[in-house]
Amino acid sequence: MNAQEHPNLILTAQGVKDIRAQLGNIPIFDNTLKAVKEEIDAEIASGIETPIPKDYSGGYTHVRHKRNMIVLQKAGVLYQILDDEKYAKYVKDMLMQYEGMYKTLPLHPKTRSYARGKLFWQCLNDSNWLVYVSQAYDCIYNYLSEEERNKLETNLFKPFADHISVDSPQFYQRVHNHSTWGNAAVGMIGLVMNDQELIDRALYGIKGVNLDTNAKDDDGGFLNKNGKAGFLANIEEPFSPDGYYNEGPYYQRYAMYPFLIFAEGLHNVKPEMKIFEYKDGVLLKSINALLNLSDADGEFFPLNDGQKGMSYYNDALVTAVDISYHFGKQDPGLLTIAKEQNKVLLDDSGLAVALGIKNGEAKPFDKKSINLSDGPDGNQGGVGILRNEDIELVFKYAAQGSSHGHYDKLSYSLYEKGEEVIQDYGLARFVNIEQKGGGNYLKENKTWAKQTIAHNTVTQNETSHFGGKYEIGSQHHSVLHYFSSENENVQIASAKEANAYPGTEMLRTIAVIKDEDFEKPYVLDIMKVTSKTANQYDFPYYFLGQVLNTNFVYKTPETLKTLGDKNGYQHLFIEGSAKASTDNSKLSWLNKGKFYTLTTVTSNDDELLFTRIGANDPEFNLRREAALMLRRKNTKNTLFVSAIEAHGGYSTVSESAVNSNSYIKELKVILDTEDYTAVQITNVDGNTKLFITSNTNASKETDHKLKINNINYKWTGVYYFK
Amino acid sequence: MNAQEHPNLILTAQGVKDIRAQLGNIPIFDNTLKAVKEEIDAEIASGIETPIPKDYSGGYTHVRHKRNMIVLQKAGVLYQILDDEKYAKYVKDMLMQYEGMYKTLPLHPKTRSYARGKLFWQCLNDSNWLVYVSQAYDCIYNYLSEEERNKLETNLFKPFADHISVDSPQFYQRVHNHSTWGNAAVGMIGLVMNDQELIDRALYGIKGVNLDTNAKDDDGGFLNKNGKAGFLANIEEPFSPDGYYNEGPYYQRYAMYPFLIFAEGLHNVKPEMKIFEYKDGVLLKSINALLNLSDADGEFFPLNDGQKGMSYYNDALVTAVDISYHFGKQDPGLLTIAKEQNKVLLDDSGLAVALGIKNGEAKPFDKKSINLSDGPDGNQGGVGILRNEDIELVFKYAAQGSSHGHYDKLSYSLYEKGEEVIQDYGLARFVNIEQKGGGNYLKENKTWAKQTIAHNTVTQNETSHFGGKYEIGSQHHSVLHYFSSENENVQIASAKEANAYPGTEMLRTIAVIKDEDFEKPYVLDIMKVTSKTANQYDFPYYFLGQVLNTNFVYKTPETLKTLGDKNGYQHLFIEGSAKASTDNSKLSWLNKGKFYTLTTVTSNDDELLFTRIGANDPEFNLRREAALMLRRKNTKNTLFVSAIEAHGGYSTVSESAVNSNSYIKELKVILDTEDYTAVQITNVDGNTKLFITSNTNASKETDHKLKINNINYKWTGVYYFK
Repeated sequence: MNAQEHPNLILTAQGVKDIRAQLGNIPIFDNTLKAVKEEIDAEIASGIETPIPKDYSGGYTHVRHKRNMIVLQKAGVLYQILDDEKYAKYVKDMLMQYEGMYKTLPLHPKTRSYARGKLFWQCLNDSNWLVYVSQAYDCIYNYLSEEERNKLETNLFKPFADHISVDSPQFYQRVHNHSTWGNAAVGMIGLVMNDQELIDRALYGIKGVNLDTNAKDDDGGFLNKNGKAGFLANIEEPFSPDGYYNEGPYYQRYAMYPFLIFAEGLHNVKPEMKIFEYKDGVLLKSINALLNLSDADGEFFPLNDGQKGMSYYNDALVTAVDISYHFGKQDPGLLTIAKEQNKVLLDDSGLAVALGIKNGEAKPFDKKSINLSDGPDGNQGGVGILRNEDIELVFKYAAQGSSHGHYDKLSYSLYEKGEEVIQDYGLARFVNIEQKGGGNYLKENKTWAKQTIAHNTVTQNETSHFGGKYEIGSQHHSVLHYFSSENENVQIASAKEANAYPGTEMLRTIAVIKDEDFEKPYVLDIMKVTSKTANQYDFPYYFLGQVLNTNFVYKTPETLKTLGDKNGYQHLFIEGSAKASTDNSKLSWLNKGKFYTLTTVTSNDDELLFTRIGANDPEFNLRREAALMLRRKNTKNTLFVSAIEAHGGYSTVSESAVNSNSYIKELKVILDTEDYTAVQITNVDGNTKLFITSNTNASKETDHKLKINNINYKWTGVYYFK
Repeated sequence: MNAQEHPNLILTAQGVKDIRAQLGNIPIFDNTLKAVKEEIDAEIASGIETPIPKDYSGGYTHVRHKRNMIVLQKAGVLYQILDDEKYAKYVKDMLMQYEGMYKTLPLHPKTRSYARGKLFWQCLNDSNWLVYVSQAYDCIYNYLSEEERNKLETNLFKPFADHISVDSPQFYQRVHNHSTWGNAAVGMIGLVMNDQELIDRALYGIKGVNLDTNAKDDDGGFLNKNGKAGFLANIEEPFSPDGYYNEGPYYQRYAMYPFLIFAEGLHNVKPEMKIFEYKDGVLLKSINALLNLSDADGEFFPLNDGQKGMSYYNDALVTAVDISYHFGKQDPGLLTIAKEQNKVLLDDSGLAVALGIKNGEAKPFDKKSINLSDGPDGNQGGVGILRNEDIELVFKYAAQGSSHGHYDKLSYSLYEKGEEVIQDYGLARFVNIEQKGGGNYLKENKTWAKQTIAHNTVTQNETSHFGGKYEIGSQHHSVLHYFSSENENVQIASAKEANAYPGTEMLRTIAVIKDEDFEKPYVLDIMKVTSKTANQYDFPYYFLGQVLNTNFVYKTPETLKTLGDKNGYQHLFIEGSAKASTDNSKLSWLNKGKFYTLTTVTSNDDELLFTRIGANDPEFNLRREAALMLRRKNTKNTLFVSAIEAHGGYSTVSESAVNSNSYIKELKVILDTEDYTAVQITNVDGNTKLFITSNTNASKETDHKLKINNINYKWTGVYYFK
């Protein structure tokens, strides 16, 4: 391909011909085009505005410049596809206005960022802008005179690329989603300008610049722990071989766009790089991983810092799905997601998807249980997703997750049909809502959302994992014990954490079991704690919904006091407290028309606390949601065993309650040794099942023999269930 | 029509012929029939169960007998339409099983009801059963031998009808939704049996029985305040001439079925009665009123005791819509609702609806602003619904609402596109969920949900309206001042309450205003209080959603204490408190992706309290929802003036916040006299509008002249807005 030919970045000259030939004949593409045309025609009618930068996220100038980048990109595409000069002129006029402003523009007046931009308060947003605007520039490249191009490149694009890179190495010279945007921005404008120096800077980082490996950014993340930088390093480091992105799906979605759009540009302009095959094709694998990290409604699991509600309906995922389909193996499941998204990219990949849909090639995108390793080499723990019918369980045993990581080793969350049952709180932020701290991270993100007690895992002695210290957490990761999804009725993930609390080891084995005696699959959760010292263990269940009843007697206080004064405990009110009085403590609740019951093995020394989030929250930043917390004091080794059932439902229209009671009569630990833990589940009809997990041997081939209560059990592999 | 001919009650011999002729050709009817056939075939396959009665609502025997009545009715219909004897046999077999059990059945063992049934714990449910089973009996009447009929009538139906009437006069001999079920049950079996004595008992009550007019039922309602009884009295009393049902839409929906199904039976068997023309056609009018008492999603406004989520998708409304269409004026709007319901009655009326839909006659059911009077003669206050675009406001100035009434004079709730913005709490009950107090009213219904402080109106001196006393509340009602919906941009309801607090008068004028300077219609709320004594006024806004920001500085306490110790105050925690410091206090919040702002006129003496429901709630029966409460102490006459704006929105997918700020710069009272109140609204662009309401003259023809700040205003009618 001729690098002089334009467009060549995302649209290609041949692609434009193909698209024009098919127009009117590819419904989803035609509809997307129509919507974009209407949107841009309205923008053109309302005139060009490029205000002097002033605001944080959510403020007027921020929103306007953010809007402009999108509008420019779309107008450029419309010019190519519709061959109507008004779009090219609009892009040119706006770019010239930016050129006029940018050449004398100082740093953005807001000072909160570790790397201030010029159009925006942070370089990150400036980079977003250039990623989009590069595409617009490519589309009208041939429309402009050489003089116009020189003017734009000299006064706008080149200094813009320099500001976010050589002038901001603390932003650019890292392995971090921020840097990926920076790399892509510099690389894409480099590809359009055919500027090899910029392209190299994008791919390999700024030559000769090495940052202090101990310095940190605004979020408390290391700036550059290992000295790596550039787009290729940003592919190497954060993605595991399975395509899991170390910060989690929310940030993967955010990072995905620059990864893929720059990759598409590289593929088109520098096909010899074979960028989609880089690191064993990890970019395309990562799209599959990301789609699997969504619930039944397509919403991403809010692991680490993740805002709930973000989903594969986001435009970045339209890009991801179309690129994955076109440059990957034309997976027909992706066409179903594209249909749900109801739009496509207005480029070659979008054309391929539109044709695939039109030709009836779509098949369901079938999400199954999946284990995704974490770490550049796939050996730093991971995330296991267990799926059976409408039940989805997300088990996190990953590494720290960079500066967006939470202290939530061996935590999990539970979903039924896309609704949260046992929640992960997510982040404490209202992204882009200016009234809430400028739309940025709120202090409760650190004091609450990242803390261990905000998660469905063990907190020891009211301190967070790794003391809540990022430097320590970053050195460690949990370890997979086993993942077993061969038997469709018994899906299990088991993992160990030995570093969160020095001297304490935690082994958590979670199974989603479909038993014909039960209406729906249920969760069996075994947390085995081994410690050299006596500790207090707090084990919360962040259930969502309304308490129906309990089998234990609890007291509710007249005034609500906080559970503690630090490490997240200061944000919890105690709404009720009890001493466990039976071998099984039970809580049933109702959420969105469905019933749930937690059954947990308890002894008379256990405390049960109802807590509610919202204490010490002077600006109402936190949601008032509940938990039931099991507290076990002054204990060395211990075992937490629970079952969570989804059962029945309630309709406010028919007012009928179906199956509102738990099916479990008793949950009993009948053996717990270093090597094995055996749990017997007795249902209300008196039928029993036995689950034995191997705590030490993770081989799926080993034969086991075990005598419990004079009965011999024999099996092969990591678990027994019968 | 020959009363000997069967079926003649709901299905008619001619109707069956017509239906059979159209089968296969009427999609919505065919689909309903198919679904019912599948449902009943599955029931037949699983066998007949008629357990000995034992449980409360939600328990097994309750649910089974409730299910049986539905199954019997449907099986009877299937026999008629499909002409397949297996359905007749099934109905016969089950009826004979009931006959065998009933003849020796004692009172139901559960003792909580003021009128115990035999199959169920309360006569009410027994009556439900007979209403359905009468229809089944009618359908298989000719299939049975005379001997079989005698057996059923002698041992089952006649004693069953007697138990719920002559043996339970405290249940039957009243004007109450319970009695309506009883009347319909007795009347319908009477029509099938052609038993004039039962029919008369149904229409006019039990001859010669007069109850103590001061006695009360379980809910605290009077048993029979005025001695009236029977079906006709039950039409006379609770319905206003506009068709508003005095207990509110939730209970109207419940009562609707017996009203309409018995009326349909009377229409078929006793056409000379012209039951659908009774009281100026109020039964059909009431259906229109009920449909108008639903939000954009078809969910009924939870006035008085009403469980949220009940909607016109309930089967009782399928009955109502079909009957209203067939026996009324074939309103094509009803066909649209029938389409949404996606099912029809399997009778003549359902056939008419199915044909109407098939013939493309459906038109939108257009809900507009509407004022519904309360009281048998329409002079006991009412409910005003103001609608403009997606905004709906429900203003309640009705009478007490029988035993299900709340102490909520001049309260309101606000909706946007079917979502609650400022909520009415509804009831404290989980209907038919056994774990929650047997599915019955919870004590928090009385201690919280009925209390004035649970509503968006004024509470004086921390006591509820009428001292929370039903006897007193039942003697009074609010009074309409004016209702004005002629100008589509300014919809207003204004009403007075003079009895809730002796010595205090409240005049509330609420307008929904569409102003071109504003994105959406906003609410202007003027509450004028005139009192002979100095009082404390509490004025809460039960907003739903997350606090965004305020323009006042508030403190949040370390521990949460209750706001008071009685009259509902004991259920509120104080989450924040402030002294108003500006002339306008503002609160913005975010709910389900939309922004809202309250702007309220305050002085430095006003307190602002953030409260949360949930204190003294030992079984977690209450939802943890918030309010902002304006508190004004030691005040005689006063004026509360507020505006509530809906504006903009937020998407968690695009993460863009649009119009997140209030448009109102200032809300200012520029005149407040006995006769007029004038409020000036200044928006952020500096444009002002003036709203003047006439506080004394409610004539729409009167000319007014008024000088304010040396400007003369002239207008005709109850308000000025410009």
